Amino acid sequence: MIDFRSDNVHKIADPVLKEIIEANKNTVASYGGDELTKNAKEMLSEVFNTEIDSFFVSTGTAANSLSLASITPEYGTIFCGSDSHIYLEECNAPEFFSNSAKLYPVKTKDGKIIYGELEKALLFHPSDEFDMVASSLSISQATEAGTIYKQDEIKNLKNIADSKKLKIHMDGARFANVVAAMDKKPQELTWEAGVDVMSFGTTKNGTMSAEAVIFFNTNLSNQTNLYMKRSGHLLSKMRFISSQIIGYLKNDLWIELAKSANKKANLLSQNLNKFDFIHLPWQTEINEVFIIVPKELEDYLKNHEVSCHNWTKISLDEQYHKDNYSFLRLVTSFNTDENDIHKVVEMIESF
Amino acid sequence: MIDFRSDNVHKIADPVLKEIIEANKNTVASYGGDELTKNAKEMLSEVFNTEIDSFFVSTGTAANSLSLASITPEYGTIFCGSDSHIYLEECNAPEFFSNSAKLYPVKTKDGKIIYGELEKALLFHPSDEFDMVASSLSISQATEAGTIYKQDEIKNLKNIADSKKLKIHMDGARFANVVAAMDKKPQELTWEAGVDVMSFGTTKNGTMSAEAVIFFNTNLSNQTNLYMKRSGHLLSKMRFISSQIIGYLKNDLWIELAKSANKKANLLSQNLNKFDFIHLPWQTEINEVFIIVPKELEDYLKNHEVSCHNWTKISLDEQYHKDNYSFLRLVTSFNTDENDIHKVVEMIESF
Amino acid sequence: MIDFRSDNVHKIADPVLKEIIEANKNTVASYGGDELTKNAKEMLSEVFNTEIDSFFVSTGTAANSLSLASITPEYGTIFCGSDSHIYLEECNAPEFFSNSAKLYPVKTKDGKIIYGELEKALLFHPSDEFDMVASSLSISQATEAGTIYKQDEIKNLKNIADSKKLKIHMDGARFANVVAAMDKKPQELTWEAGVDVMSFGTTKNGTMSAEAVIFFNTNLSNQTNLYMKRSGHLLSKMRFISSQIIGYLKNDLWIELAKSANKKANLLSQNLNKFDFIHLPWQTEINEVFIIVPKELEDYLKNHEVSCHNWTKISLDEQYHKDNYSFLRLVTSFNTDENDIHKVVEMIESF
Amino acid sequence: MIDFRSDNVHKIADPVLKEIIEANKNTVASYGGDELTKNAKEMLSEVFNTEIDSFFVSTGTAANSLSLASITPEYGTIFCGSDSHIYLEECNAPEFFSNSAKLYPVKTKDGKIIYGELEKALLFHPSDEFDMVASSLSISQATEAGTIYKQDEIKNLKNIADSKKLKIHMDGARFANVVAAMDKKPQELTWEAGVDVMSFGTTKNGTMSAEAVIFFNTNLSNQTNLYMKRSGHLLSKMRFISSQIIGYLKNDLWIELAKSANKKANLLSQNLNKFDFIHLPWQTEINEVFIIVPKELEDYLKNHEVSCHNWTKISLDEQYHKDNYSFLRLVTSFNTDENDIHKVVEMIESF
Repeated sequence: MIDFRSDNVHKIADPVLKEIIEANKNTVASYGGDELTKNAKEMLSEVFNTEIDSFFVSTGTAANSLSLASITPEYGTIFCGSDSHIYLEECNAPEFFSNSAKLYPVKTKDGKIIYGELEKALLFHPSDEFDMVASSLSISQATEAGTIYKQDEIKNLKNIADSKKLKIHMDGARFANVVAAMDKKPQELTWEAGVDVMSFGTTKNGTMSAEAVIFFNTNLSNQTNLYMKRSGHLLSKMRFISSQIIGYLKNDLWIELAKSANKKANLLSQNLNKFDFIHLPWQTEINEVFIIVPKELEDYLKNHEVSCHNWTKISLDEQYHKDNYSFLRLVTSFNTDENDIHKVVEMIESF
Repeated sequence: MIDFRSDNVHKIADPVLKEIIEANKNTVASYGGDELTKNAKEMLSEVFNTEIDSFFVSTGTAANSLSLASITPEYGTIFCGSDSHIYLEECNAPEFFSNSAKLYPVKTKDGKIIYGELEKALLFHPSDEFDMVASSLSISQATEAGTIYKQDEIKNLKNIADSKKLKIHMDGARFANVVAAMDKKPQELTWEAGVDVMSFGTTKNGTMSAEAVIFFNTNLSNQTNLYMKRSGHLLSKMRFISSQIIGYLKNDLWIELAKSANKKANLLSQNLNKFDFIHLPWQTEINEVFIIVPKELEDYLKNHEVSCHNWTKISLDEQYHKDNYSFLRLVTSFNTDENDIHKVVEMIESF
Repeated sequence: MIDFRSDNVHKIADPVLKEIIEANKNTVASYGGDELTKNAKEMLSEVFNTEIDSFFVSTGTAANSLSLASITPEYGTIFCGSDSHIYLEECNAPEFFSNSAKLYPVKTKDGKIIYGELEKALLFHPSDEFDMVASSLSISQATEAGTIYKQDEIKNLKNIADSKKLKIHMDGARFANVVAAMDKKPQELTWEAGVDVMSFGTTKNGTMSAEAVIFFNTNLSNQTNLYMKRSGHLLSKMRFISSQIIGYLKNDLWIELAKSANKKANLLSQNLNKFDFIHLPWQTEINEVFIIVPKELEDYLKNHEVSCHNWTKISLDEQYHKDNYSFLRLVTSFNTDENDIHKVVEMIESF
Repeated sequence: MIDFRSDNVHKIADPVLKEIIEANKNTVASYGGDELTKNAKEMLSEVFNTEIDSFFVSTGTAANSLSLASITPEYGTIFCGSDSHIYLEECNAPEFFSNSAKLYPVKTKDGKIIYGELEKALLFHPSDEFDMVASSLSISQATEAGTIYKQDEIKNLKNIADSKKLKIHMDGARFANVVAAMDKKPQELTWEAGVDVMSFGTTKNGTMSAEAVIFFNTNLSNQTNLYMKRSGHLLSKMRFISSQIIGYLKNDLWIELAKSANKKANLLSQNLNKFDFIHLPWQTEINEVFIIVPKELEDYLKNHEVSCHNWTKISLDEQYHKDNYSFLRLVTSFNTDENDIHKVVEMIESF
């Protein structure tokens, strides 16, 4: 099988697994009181070149929901992209963790929140003394369309959000791919652009199960330990998440893995773009390639053991909708074999 | 002051108050175990010409949220109009009562959910085994724009909703005004059109504080007593809500009051429509008149003791937005004085 | 029927109803923006002789739960009597409103929280960085046993609670009966003794449906409007609750009504105490009489149209349990007829 | 350091780590759609010798709370030991996951729920139509005192619970140690004794982070996938939990590890019991040794690098409380060195 289903179908990168194995000795304090956890947190601070508060959990949904609960009261509104993971794919976890906050979807273009739509949403959001309170804005970086917000774009959203004093969350499930793709430092795309708290994903890029909630605004993290515990997200043997983070950050492995994944997506994208019956709705900026293809090509690929997911979050344009097209997402990984990409391209040439 | 702020600024209709006074004797079972409550429930059954389960609470928000919690699990999605009261004006009560269900706003036109938008929302709603579950549709009757869904329009929404087996809720805060305005029986606009549970409002139309949750689908009400109690909505001296319902329904008072309110809105609407600097974006079908006017006229009216609310839930069209217009809502009641309407019209003639 | 089931089976006191009727004129701002609501709040401030923040709702459960949610985070613990209303009779409303706080029952004697038990509960409450946080103490005044905490007793509980910096809530569903029974000012039993927030009940003592959440610690009320709205407890026609409060407080009606109710309970208690087959486990201090009687007497009374509730919240002592006794609660009201009490006593004499 | 702080300070057992490493190849379906997960579930079915539904999560708190949420509605009551982990040490997670269920602590002796106390709690639990509903009973096996419920004891609790049709949950954080200690099959201590759902712990006994929610009553698991997702507990790379379960169960490793841990606790217990200034309040049945010692001995041990936790969940008897004693818990693991135990004993001999 040639597997483009997701980056999470892939294995753990060897240096990360090595750190886990390395960590497996002695007894250490549980619940994060150990040295490895301390080290992992310090490494994260160095990566972002500022003092941060960070907390480690097993899933991206937990990281997002804990982040949002830290910046949104139960009577608050979270603004987010209408195609965002927190809105569509987390089974109401953000509402649950925040004790019933409201999600307010804002229209996106190429995966990015449209400025004017956010302005309008804020302008018409109720603001009487009994009304829900506009509280936070969540930005996906990279976006759900596999595109990247430039630093200025984040700053612009932040400026709009300032009109209601929104706190800013960044869903960085594929943040590594963003940093790898741009000539920017992590800090430039986060706290320097106004981000208060982020979900720093690593699982999709080569760890086993390790996501960090990172507070750049450290005033917001007072309750996070308690939120973690009451949601069952405080791991007793924390050292084994921390060791993953260490392996991930050490020697810039995370950038290396992400560059490798991005490069393969790029290769795939460029090759697919040559076929006139394949339409790429969005530019390939990270490790995801979205294509609109005739339904027959989808069947052909799947019959030839090429696996990928149908993309159902966004409606096709009218023309594709009518003409029996399929919307597919192909995801690459550091572990994707370049030869497989060539095989797929050859396969399509024979279609 | 000439007061068009809302129907809830008005007094209790005399026959309703009379029933309250009448109920104030003897000792009776508390928490709804009394005869008046039994009678009120039977009268409601007769009004809707079917066997129903009904529950009485003090506010419309409670009625809506208890209704929605009965048809939506914590991992469910509630589809609703993007301008709906439950989405914009209940401070996350629906999310709270349902233990974190998601609200999914669907675009409206003239206050009515656009069929194609609902179809698209359902089509692209996730449906994997871990995804939130499309659960319910909430319809406002009358709409937030003061317009009325025709019976066929409700049936059409119900048919679309059937594709995901959604349960149907009707927010009937101004249902009386709808029935008064149409040549239809209550049943035709509710259970015969597919409604499972409704919030039957009476407070805006002449009672003190009495809203009914009505289950046409009586399989859905098993937990309602418990939901009421745990949300603090079970009144000990229930007879005093029940007596309001009795006074409201007796001799079709509710229809009479609503007709009176509608008539005045109609009069106001027709007169305002004559001025070429006043734009009515929506047809006046119940007791609400929406107007777009030059900002100067708003100031003029307010300086002359005419009170009404600015309508902020919906953005103005570009032209009005640019040209310094105000969007106002004027609400009439059975208790509105027709002379006041004439005074306002004369006032505007002198503008 | 001679009705001792509860104080909430009784009618509204005439002066309260009169204020409701009086309030039924003109249009006024909704949601509490009216003059009557302002006046009612000022009258409450005068009664308690301090600046307070107050909020009016329809039920005691709402008042308790809104109070507790204001002083207990979702990861907090509420200490309360093991027989308290909030623990046993509110269908998890305190847990719901507080977004999942824990209730920690502390043993009581004669309805009062036992000092040593509270001390032990606080001493052994977890206190690590991931543990739930000891947050608040709820005291019922009068107690569930119809007894009264003396001022010193409240102060003593407050002192114990200070070891964990607990905020203090008072459930004053029958607070009027307490004030009427003691030679104390309202302030002496509340904020002067350390109470931060109280549920000030009026419904059981002669209003229709009016309970006040009163913040003596006004720093705690910032979110209360929003908590009210999201729980559906913000009444649009607030003037009709406010007018009840006004009628209730004007001319010390509340004290008069409560004295009347207490007096009848006292009369009943003294008479019942004469029978050697009737055991009164607790002193009658307010308007509730608790008796342990042979099962045959319970049947006899009920066959003779005397109504009262079986008291099931607390286990009988072993001896009564064995010997087929019943535990009954008889509640009197301002509206209870003294002749009925004599009739019941005569009835029992013929038993 | 000689480390008796907890079993979760220890490393992963080598065969478990080996399975993780073995699993790290190829691409596989995420979110549990892989073969390893299928295999792990089948192995669990075999261990319990019946058809089960099982779900894998990262923490014991998540497993407990997901279990309880499956058998307790938001208006329900969960009965549990007054010293239970779910009541005292999960920061309100059970309340949170169940959307506000109430926990009702029942007194224990030697860690075990006292029959008469449970009977009384059920007898006096409210049961009117508006009252919270007695829903479930949670039993810790082994108990918080390191003792074991015999099969008959579980059955007896089940019989009492049947009076209110409670569903039964078992918190099996140290279930392996129980099975290792007794001459019983897993099924005899669970579904054959009436358990509906259990938290099957493995983390404390040699895995990295792997807990299973096991439904013996498979009618109760319909919503578990959704509850997992909305609480952020669905791991994308599930194979790495599943591989831990496989390594844990294969060749009865779990029993072997637990026997080893138990044996060391037994050795420690027997040796400590010889000192007349050391009191063991409870029999050592699994891998936990509880001791009451003079405060000076605690200091002496800690100064000699012996680590253990103070046990604060339960009050000492009066005599120890007065006389400046400390209550300590010492936990052993498969990984505990027997020599360390001898060292500690020698150390105490020199005290």
